[in-house]
Amino acid sequence: MSVQGQPLPQSDVRLFSGQSNPALAASLAENLGIRLEVTHVSRFSNDNLFVQLGASVRGRAVYIVQSLIPPVSDHLVELLMMLDIAKSAAAREIHAVIPYFSYARSDKKDAPRISITARLVADLLKTAGATHIMTMTLHSPQVHGFFSIPADPLTARGLFSDYFRARRYSAADTVVVSPDMGSAKSSVRFADMLGLGVATANKTRIDDRRVQYSGLIGRQVSGFRRAIIHDDEIATGGTIVELARLLLDHGLEEVSVVCTHGVFLRGALERLEAVPEIKEIVTTDTVPQNVRPDSKLVVLSTAPIFAGAIRQNYFRRSIGELFDFGDRDQPEE
Amino acid sequence: MSVQGQPLPQSDVRLFSGQSNPALAASLAENLGIRLEVTHVSRFSNDNLFVQLGASVRGRAVYIVQSLIPPVSDHLVELLMMLDIAKSAAAREIHAVIPYFSYARSDKKDAPRISITARLVADLLKTAGATHIMTMTLHSPQVHGFFSIPADPLTARGLFSDYFRARRYSAADTVVVSPDMGSAKSSVRFADMLGLGVATANKTRIDDRRVQYSGLIGRQVSGFRRAIIHDDEIATGGTIVELARLLLDHGLEEVSVVCTHGVFLRGALERLEAVPEIKEIVTTDTVPQNVRPDSKLVVLSTAPIFAGAIRQNYFRRSIGELFDFGDRDQPEE
Amino acid sequence: MSVQGQPLPQSDVRLFSGQSNPALAASLAENLGIRLEVTHVSRFSNDNLFVQLGASVRGRAVYIVQSLIPPVSDHLVELLMMLDIAKSAAAREIHAVIPYFSYARSDKKDAPRISITARLVADLLKTAGATHIMTMTLHSPQVHGFFSIPADPLTARGLFSDYFRARRYSAADTVVVSPDMGSAKSSVRFADMLGLGVATANKTRIDDRRVQYSGLIGRQVSGFRRAIIHDDEIATGGTIVELARLLLDHGLEEVSVVCTHGVFLRGALERLEAVPEIKEIVTTDTVPQNVRPDSKLVVLSTAPIFAGAIRQNYFRRSIGELFDFGDRDQPEE
Amino acid sequence: MSVQGQPLPQSDVRLFSGQSNPALAASLAENLGIRLEVTHVSRFSNDNLFVQLGASVRGRAVYIVQSLIPPVSDHLVELLMMLDIAKSAAAREIHAVIPYFSYARSDKKDAPRISITARLVADLLKTAGATHIMTMTLHSPQVHGFFSIPADPLTARGLFSDYFRARRYSAADTVVVSPDMGSAKSSVRFADMLGLGVATANKTRIDDRRVQYSGLIGRQVSGFRRAIIHDDEIATGGTIVELARLLLDHGLEEVSVVCTHGVFLRGALERLEAVPEIKEIVTTDTVPQNVRPDSKLVVLSTAPIFAGAIRQNYFRRSIGELFDFGDRDQPEE
Amino acid sequence: MSVQGQPLPQSDVRLFSGQSNPALAASLAENLGIRLEVTHVSRFSNDNLFVQLGASVRGRAVYIVQSLIPPVSDHLVELLMMLDIAKSAAAREIHAVIPYFSYARSDKKDAPRISITARLVADLLKTAGATHIMTMTLHSPQVHGFFSIPADPLTARGLFSDYFRARRYSAADTVVVSPDMGSAKSSVRFADMLGLGVATANKTRIDDRRVQYSGLIGRQVSGFRRAIIHDDEIATGGTIVELARLLLDHGLEEVSVVCTHGVFLRGALERLEAVPEIKEIVTTDTVPQNVRPDSKLVVLSTAPIFAGAIRQNYFRRSIGELFDFGDRDQPEE
Amino acid sequence: MSVQGQPLPQSDVRLFSGQSNPALAASLAENLGIRLEVTHVSRFSNDNLFVQLGASVRGRAVYIVQSLIPPVSDHLVELLMMLDIAKSAAAREIHAVIPYFSYARSDKKDAPRISITARLVADLLKTAGATHIMTMTLHSPQVHGFFSIPADPLTARGLFSDYFRARRYSAADTVVVSPDMGSAKSSVRFADMLGLGVATANKTRIDDRRVQYSGLIGRQVSGFRRAIIHDDEIATGGTIVELARLLLDHGLEEVSVVCTHGVFLRGALERLEAVPEIKEIVTTDTVPQNVRPDSKLVVLSTAPIFAGAIRQNYFRRSIGELFDFGDRDQPEE
Repeated sequence: MSVQGQPLPQSDVRLFSGQSNPALAASLAENLGIRLEVTHVSRFSNDNLFVQLGASVRGRAVYIVQSLIPPVSDHLVELLMMLDIAKSAAAREIHAVIPYFSYARSDKKDAPRISITARLVADLLKTAGATHIMTMTLHSPQVHGFFSIPADPLTARGLFSDYFRARRYSAADTVVVSPDMGSAKSSVRFADMLGLGVATANKTRIDDRRVQYSGLIGRQVSGFRRAIIHDDEIATGGTIVELARLLLDHGLEEVSVVCTHGVFLRGALERLEAVPEIKEIVTTDTVPQNVRPDSKLVVLSTAPIFAGAIRQNYFRRSIGELFDFGDRDQPEE
Repeated sequence: MSVQGQPLPQSDVRLFSGQSNPALAASLAENLGIRLEVTHVSRFSNDNLFVQLGASVRGRAVYIVQSLIPPVSDHLVELLMMLDIAKSAAAREIHAVIPYFSYARSDKKDAPRISITARLVADLLKTAGATHIMTMTLHSPQVHGFFSIPADPLTARGLFSDYFRARRYSAADTVVVSPDMGSAKSSVRFADMLGLGVATANKTRIDDRRVQYSGLIGRQVSGFRRAIIHDDEIATGGTIVELARLLLDHGLEEVSVVCTHGVFLRGALERLEAVPEIKEIVTTDTVPQNVRPDSKLVVLSTAPIFAGAIRQNYFRRSIGELFDFGDRDQPEE
Repeated sequence: MSVQGQPLPQSDVRLFSGQSNPALAASLAENLGIRLEVTHVSRFSNDNLFVQLGASVRGRAVYIVQSLIPPVSDHLVELLMMLDIAKSAAAREIHAVIPYFSYARSDKKDAPRISITARLVADLLKTAGATHIMTMTLHSPQVHGFFSIPADPLTARGLFSDYFRARRYSAADTVVVSPDMGSAKSSVRFADMLGLGVATANKTRIDDRRVQYSGLIGRQVSGFRRAIIHDDEIATGGTIVELARLLLDHGLEEVSVVCTHGVFLRGALERLEAVPEIKEIVTTDTVPQNVRPDSKLVVLSTAPIFAGAIRQNYFRRSIGELFDFGDRDQPEE
Repeated sequence: MSVQGQPLPQSDVRLFSGQSNPALAASLAENLGIRLEVTHVSRFSNDNLFVQLGASVRGRAVYIVQSLIPPVSDHLVELLMMLDIAKSAAAREIHAVIPYFSYARSDKKDAPRISITARLVADLLKTAGATHIMTMTLHSPQVHGFFSIPADPLTARGLFSDYFRARRYSAADTVVVSPDMGSAKSSVRFADMLGLGVATANKTRIDDRRVQYSGLIGRQVSGFRRAIIHDDEIATGGTIVELARLLLDHGLEEVSVVCTHGVFLRGALERLEAVPEIKEIVTTDTVPQNVRPDSKLVVLSTAPIFAGAIRQNYFRRSIGELFDFGDRDQPEE
Repeated sequence: MSVQGQPLPQSDVRLFSGQSNPALAASLAENLGIRLEVTHVSRFSNDNLFVQLGASVRGRAVYIVQSLIPPVSDHLVELLMMLDIAKSAAAREIHAVIPYFSYARSDKKDAPRISITARLVADLLKTAGATHIMTMTLHSPQVHGFFSIPADPLTARGLFSDYFRARRYSAADTVVVSPDMGSAKSSVRFADMLGLGVATANKTRIDDRRVQYSGLIGRQVSGFRRAIIHDDEIATGGTIVELARLLLDHGLEEVSVVCTHGVFLRGALERLEAVPEIKEIVTTDTVPQNVRPDSKLVVLSTAPIFAGAIRQNYFRRSIGELFDFGDRDQPEE
Repeated sequence: MSVQGQPLPQSDVRLFSGQSNPALAASLAENLGIRLEVTHVSRFSNDNLFVQLGASVRGRAVYIVQSLIPPVSDHLVELLMMLDIAKSAAAREIHAVIPYFSYARSDKKDAPRISITARLVADLLKTAGATHIMTMTLHSPQVHGFFSIPADPLTARGLFSDYFRARRYSAADTVVVSPDMGSAKSSVRFADMLGLGVATANKTRIDDRRVQYSGLIGRQVSGFRRAIIHDDEIATGGTIVELARLLLDHGLEEVSVVCTHGVFLRGALERLEAVPEIKEIVTTDTVPQNVRPDSKLVVLSTAPIFAGAIRQNYFRRSIGELFDFGDRDQPEE
C-alpha cells in the first residue's frame, strides 16, 4: 500500500519551524497536509533568546525544521532550545529536520587543537532532546556516524539528475568536474546517473584567500566542451570561479555549476554570474533563495524529498529511495 | 600555609580566553602569575566558527574564560567549542570560568512550552567537556543545582560592601531597595553587611515595555533620604529608572544603583545618568566596561575574586569565603 | 473535545500507591475510574524493605503515588524501589506522582559542603526509572529545572483562591503576608487572584530554635485588620505563630493561615490553634490529615487536580491550567 | 617495599563516618594514622535529613564509612547525601566503605515484580557520586557484578579461620554446616582453610515465620560431634536455632556459630545464647556490637582488613590477599 | 482473554536470526505465525563481519535470535551489529533473544584481574541497542541483575519435569544430584517438581583437566538406585562422566543426565554415551543439536517457551509462568 | 626539554599485549624502557574467552596493545575484556593502542540496514573502559570523530616518505596512484612529501569479486614510467593487481606498492609478487609480517611512532608531529 500523498494525522503530529527557513517549512506543511504551528522567538533585553512553541506537544511526534544558515550560532541555539522545550514538554518523538547542516564541514582534525564540530553539534542535539535527525547532502558520508541517534541523510542527487537528464548532454562532450578529491565520490554517483565521466581537481590552499589546482586536472578535461562543476556547498564562490577559469583555459566552452547548499555570501552569486561561460547555477532551497528575474540561478525544491521522508518515517516505510548511501569501497570476501 | 599570591605552576596550567572579555582574562593571568595562551577564532566562509587553542593542553588543568555577553549565541558556541577541543585533546581538568552567565535568568517556566535554558546550557557545557564551573552572582541561588558537575557561584557582594562601607551611610537615612521580590534575599544579605534595612518592590509587568510597582513599596521607604537600588543585572535600565522615579516621588533625595552585571544595552547607561538624583552606578567587570572620564559609572574588578577562587581550587583550599551561599530558610528540628 | 471526567482505560493503565498517602491515591483512582492496584510492602528481618507490585505493568502507563512525609527516608527508598520494579518489568511509561516533595526545600547551598538534596533526589528518581514527575507547590519554581525528565509542578493556588473568594475579603482591610522574602513571589500570585496586596516579612534565623522578623514588616501591615499568612509548607509551626504574634502586635485582629503542605509535626496544629486570633488553618491533602471535629483545620483535596493532570497527560492534552508557572521577571527586548 | 603500617598523608585524604558505625570508623582512622573528620547530621523540622561534611574535600581522596544497619533507609539516604556533597565539592576520588551492605541479600528475582534492590542501590551509589566501593562478605559473589564502578568485596574468612585454627578441631569429629545451599560455596572455602568437611542443609520456607530443613542433612552430619554453623549474616537468629536443634537431634553435641554480619535484632542474641549446646557466637564489627561481660559473643574487628585495603588502594598496591574471590566453577579448555 | 496461539501482527513485528541457531528461530517464527526475515551475513576480505537486515525495522518491534555457541566471539559481534543496525534504523523496541548466554558463567571474580564478562556483555548489548533481553537458564539467578534493561530469564525446568514425570520415578530409589554446590538451588527446584530429594556434590578443581568430588556426596546418595544428574550446561562432559562413575562406585545402578544447554564439544556426547549406566541425556535446542538415530540424546524444544514469552510480552501479559525465579532465601520480618 | 628516549617510570605504567601482535608490543616495551607485562589468555571449555592481566593496575596508566587482525572478532572481544579488567581493577587511565583498526573501513552506510561498525566499535571500547585511543592510518580521517574519548590517529606517512626519498624518484617519470577517489586525499599528502603528482583511479565494483577502473585514469598516467600505488590497507590484493595491470597497459614500466596495513590474506602477497613489474611492496608491522628471504616485501616498523606518541602522551607533550591531520578543505572567511 502506497503512502505517497497521504496526509499525516494532525492530532498526532506537530510541525514547527525555526527562523532560518520558514518558506521550506511551509512547503513541508502543505505537502504533508498539516498545519505549521506557530513558534514565538524574541530576545530578552540582555540578548538571551526567548523561544515558545505555540502548540501542545505532549505525546506527539514533533518535527522541528531549522537550517544552519547565518547567523549560524543563533540558529543553532534556537534549535537546541526548541528541542529542549519539546523534550521537557513530554513529546513522544522529536525529529530535528536540518536541511543544511553547515557544521558537517568540520568533520575531521586538519590542525592540532581544533574541534570536530560536526560531532560536537551531533552530541549537543542529542543532549537537547532530539531523538532522530533528518538532513541533506552531508559534506562527507562518514558524518552520519557522528550521530548516536537514528539519522537519515537524504540526497538532492535525484533532483539534479532529473534536471540535467532533460538536457541530454552526451558523454562525448560533457564531463562532471569535482573541485576536490575529498568529495569526488559524490560527484561520481551524480555522474553515473547521467552516464558521464568524472574529472577530479586537487585543490591546494596557498593562503586564506587563494587556492591552486594541480596540473593533472588539465589532462582529464582536455577534449571536452562542457563541464558540470559539482559541489555540496558554495559560500563565497571564489574557488568555483577559479576552477571555472582553469577549465576554460584548457579549452572548455561552457560550464554549469550545481550545488545542494547555495549559501551565496558576500556577492557570491554575482561573482559566479559575471563569468559569461557559466550558463546556469543549479541549487536547492535548503538555504532560502531569493531569485531575481534574470538570474542564472535555478532553485529546485527539496520539500517533496523531506516530506516524503517524514511521511515514510511516520508511516514506518523504508526511506531507502531518498537516502544518501555512501559508495561501497570495501570488498567482501 | 597561605596560598594567597602564590603563582600557579605554568607547566601544569593553561588559561584561555574566548572573545567576550579578554581584559578580565588578562587580569586573571597577571593575578595568577601565568600566561594567557593564544586562542585563534575566525569564521569559515559559511559563517561556521573556527576555533583553535594555541597551546598543548594534554594532561593539564585548563581554565577557559568566557562571559555570555552579546552576541550571546556566538559566545556560547565559541565556549562549547573551546571546551570540546580541551576534552578531545585530553586535558586533565576543564574549568569553564563564566563571569556573566546570562542564561541564569531563564531559570523556571513562567509560561507553557518554554525552555529552562539555564538548565539546558548547564547540560550543554557538560556535554562539551566542562568538568567544573566558576561563575558569579547567579540570578537565583537555585541555579547552582542545575549543574551536574561541581560549580562555584562566587559573589561580588564583598566588593560592593567594601565600597559602600567607606561611605559610612547610616541606617537612619539610607535603605537598600530590591527591585523585585524574587531576588530580595540577595539584597538582604548585601544590606546586612552594611547594617541597613531592606525595602522590597513588587514589580508587575504590564506589557513588554512597561512595569508597575505595587503600592507597599511607598510604605517601606517613606522617611528615608537615600536609597541603594540593588540588582543582579541591568540591561536596558528601563525599570531601574522607573523605580528610581517612584522612590523620588516618595520623598527620597538620592539614589545609588549597584549591580554585578552591567550589560548596559541600547543607551542604558545614558538613561540612568540622565536622572540627576542617581549619584553613582556601581558595577563590576564581568561584562567589559569602557568608562568615559565624567561618567557616574564605577567599575570594581572581579579579577581578584576569580583569581582567588582558581588559586584556592588549584591548591585544594576551601573557597567558602568567596562563595555565594543562599540564605538558610529551612528550620532544623 | 473535552476529556474531563473521562475514565482512563483500565487495560492500559496501572495505579499504585506507596504507604505514605493511600487515601489520596484512592481518591485519585476513583476520580480516574480505575483500580488502585495492590502494593505489598514489608520488611525483611534485617530491616531491608521488601516491595512487590500486585499487577503486571508490562507495556503499561504506570502511575506511582508517594508523598515524602515522615519517615521520609523510608518513603523515598520505597518509592525508588517501586520505580525500579516498574522499569525492570518493562513498563511503557513510569510517572512518579509526588504530592509532597519535601526535599524541594534543600534547593541551594546555604553553607559549605552540604547537599542540594532536591537535585540529588531528582537524579535518583531518574536512575530508579521514573520517566515523568508530577508534584505540587515546589518550594521554589527553579526546582523544576533540577529534573532532567519532564516534570509537571502543579499548584493548589486555585483551591485556595476559590475558598477565600467566597469570604469576600476586601483589599482595604485584608493583606496577604508572606513569611519570607524567598517565597514572596508565590504569595503575590495568590494575592493577585484575590485582588489583595502583599506584605513581605524578612525572617532572620538567630539560632536553631528562634527567628527574628525585621522591622519593615510593621510598616507594611499597619492599618490592616486581617492577614492571610501564606506559606508553602508548615512543619512545627513555630515561626508562623511568632509571625502571627508580630502581626497582632502591629494592630491586626484576625489571622488566616494557608499552606499547601500541612506536615504538622510535634504539636504544630495544637500550637497554631492555641492562638485565638488565628481563625482558620487551610491546607490540602498532599500530606494525609486526620481532622478532629472542632478543629480550625480546613482540608481541601488535591485529588481533582492530580486526576486532572493525569487525565490530560494520558489523553495528551495541555495541562497549562493546572501548572504552577513562575513569575516572568526577565524583560523582553 | 611494604606499605603495612604506613600512615596515609593527612593533607591528601579525608575520612568521614555516617551515623551507623562510628566505632569502626574511629578504629580505621587510628589504624590509618589520620583524623576522622566531623560529619554534622541532623534533621529539618519536616524530617528531611541535613548533612554537612566538616572538612574541605576539594581534590582529596575521600573515604566515607557507612554500614546499612537499621534504620537502613535513613543510613542509605545519609550515605547518598554524603557522596553527593563530596562530588559537588570536587573531591578527586570518592570511596564508599560499606562494611555491611544489607541489600546484597536482594540479589535476584524470587517472585514477580520485585526489585533486585542490590543492583538498584549500586546504581544509586554511582549516581550520588561514589567512584569506588569497599564492602565485606557479600551475600553472593555475583553481587560484585552489580557495580559499574570498581568494587572490592573483602572477606572476614581469614579472621575466622585464625580464630578456629587455634581451637585445633579435627576433621574426624567436626563438620562445617552451611544453612543453605545458596551460600554453601562460601562455607566450603572457610572449611578448606581449616581442613574440615562441609554439610549443606536445604532450607525450605513454609511460611513467613517457619522453615523446614530437608532430610539429607541428617545423612551428612551423622557421626560428627561438633558443628560450626557458618552463615554470612544473622538477623533474628530463628532459623539458626532451628538448624542447631536439628543437628542436636542427629547426635551432635556442640555447636559454634559464625557469621560476618551480626545484625542480631529482636532478641536474636538471647535466643541463640539460650541453647546450651551453642558454645560461642563469633562475628565481626561490621555491625556495631555491645558485648555483655558474660556473653557467648566473640567480636573480631575488621578494622585491620579495611585499613589494609584502603592503604593498599591509596598506595596502589594489589589487595588480592584481602579480596573475596568466588570459587572457579567453569573449566578451562 | 487468552493470547495463547494468537499470531503476532506481521506488519508491526520483525524477527531476525543470527547464524548460530536458525532452526530454533524458524520454529519461533512458525509458532508466532510470522515470517523469519532474511539476514545477510558475510565477511569482508579483511575478516570484518558484514551484516545486513533484510527488512525495514522502522518503528517496529524487532526480535533478534542468537545463541552464543562457538565461535562465541563471532556470534557475539554479529549480534551486537544486528542490534546496532536495528537501533540506527529506528526500530521501536529491540529484543535480544539469547537462548544460550554462554558468558553467564563468567559471573564473579574467582581470581584477581579477570573480567566479570557476563556484566561486560550485558553492558555491550545495551550500548549496541538492545532494549530488552530474553534468555534461558542463567548459570546463577544473580546474573539477572547485571542487566540495566528489562530482562526475562526463562526456564526449561517445566520441560524437564514433564519429561521425567512420565517416568514415574519414586523418591525411594531416585535422587537428583547437583554436581556443584554453586548451582544446587536450581536442582532443588527441579527435584521439588518431581517430589525427589537432592544430593549435592562439592567439586574441587585439582588442575585444568581434573576435578575431585568431596566425600560427603557418598553419604547422601548411598541407598539410592538411580540418579538424575542435573546441570545447567555441559561442554566437554568430563566432570559429568567422573561424577557418574563416583555415583556408580557408591552403588547406584542407573544415571540420567539432564542439562539445558548441551554444548557438547570435543566428543562430549560420545564420552557420555560410552558409559553404559548413563541411560539418557536430556537437553534442549538452545544449542542446535543433530541427533543420530541410535543416540541416547533426547532434545526438548524451547521454541514454545520463547514463543510464549514473546507473545506474552507483545500482548503485554505477565510471563511469570515461564520465568525462572530464584529461591527466596531472605526471611521477612 | 626533550623527552625523546626518556624511559617511562615502570612503577606508574603497565603495558599489556593481546594475542594479535606481540612482536610490536615487545618493540614498544623495549623502546619505552618498561616491561611488557604478562597477559594470560585461554578459553573455557564452552569457547568463552578467559583473560587475566598479570600485574596490578590500580592507579596506574595502562596501555593495552591489540591489532584487529583475523580472527577479528576474537581479538576485539579479547581487547574489550582487557579494558574491562583494567577499569574494574581501578586503573587511572586506560589507553587502547590499536595499530590496525580494521573496522575503520565500515565508516558509512553504503546500503540500507547495515551497521556503521566503526562507530559501534568506538562506543563498545568506551563502554568497556578505554579512556584514550591510539591508532594508525584510519581509512578516512572522519572516523576520528566517531570516538567520544580522546583519540590520536597516527600516521606512517613519514616512514614511507623517508623510504622513498632515498630512491630519489623524479616528478618527471614517477606518479603516485590512488586506487580510489575516496582515499585520494591521503595519497596527495604522501605525494606532496615526495614532490610527486597524483593520479586517481575511480573503482567501480561489478560484483563481489571484480572491479572496473574508469577510463580517465589512463589520461592521468600516460607518459609516466613508474607508479607508486598508495593505499591504506591491502587484504587479498586482487584490485591492486588489476590496477597495476591497467597501469602497465597504459605504458608504465615499474610499480611500487605501499600500504600501512598489510593484511595479506589468501595468497595476497604471492599474487602481488607474481607481477614482475611490481618491484617492491612496502608496508609496516601494524599487522605482524613474516618476511621470506627473497621476498619483495619491505616492512617498516611503527614501534618508534607508537612509542613516541605514548611517551609524548605520558609526559604531556604535544604529539602533533606524529598525528594524521586531515586536509583542510573548508575556506576561512
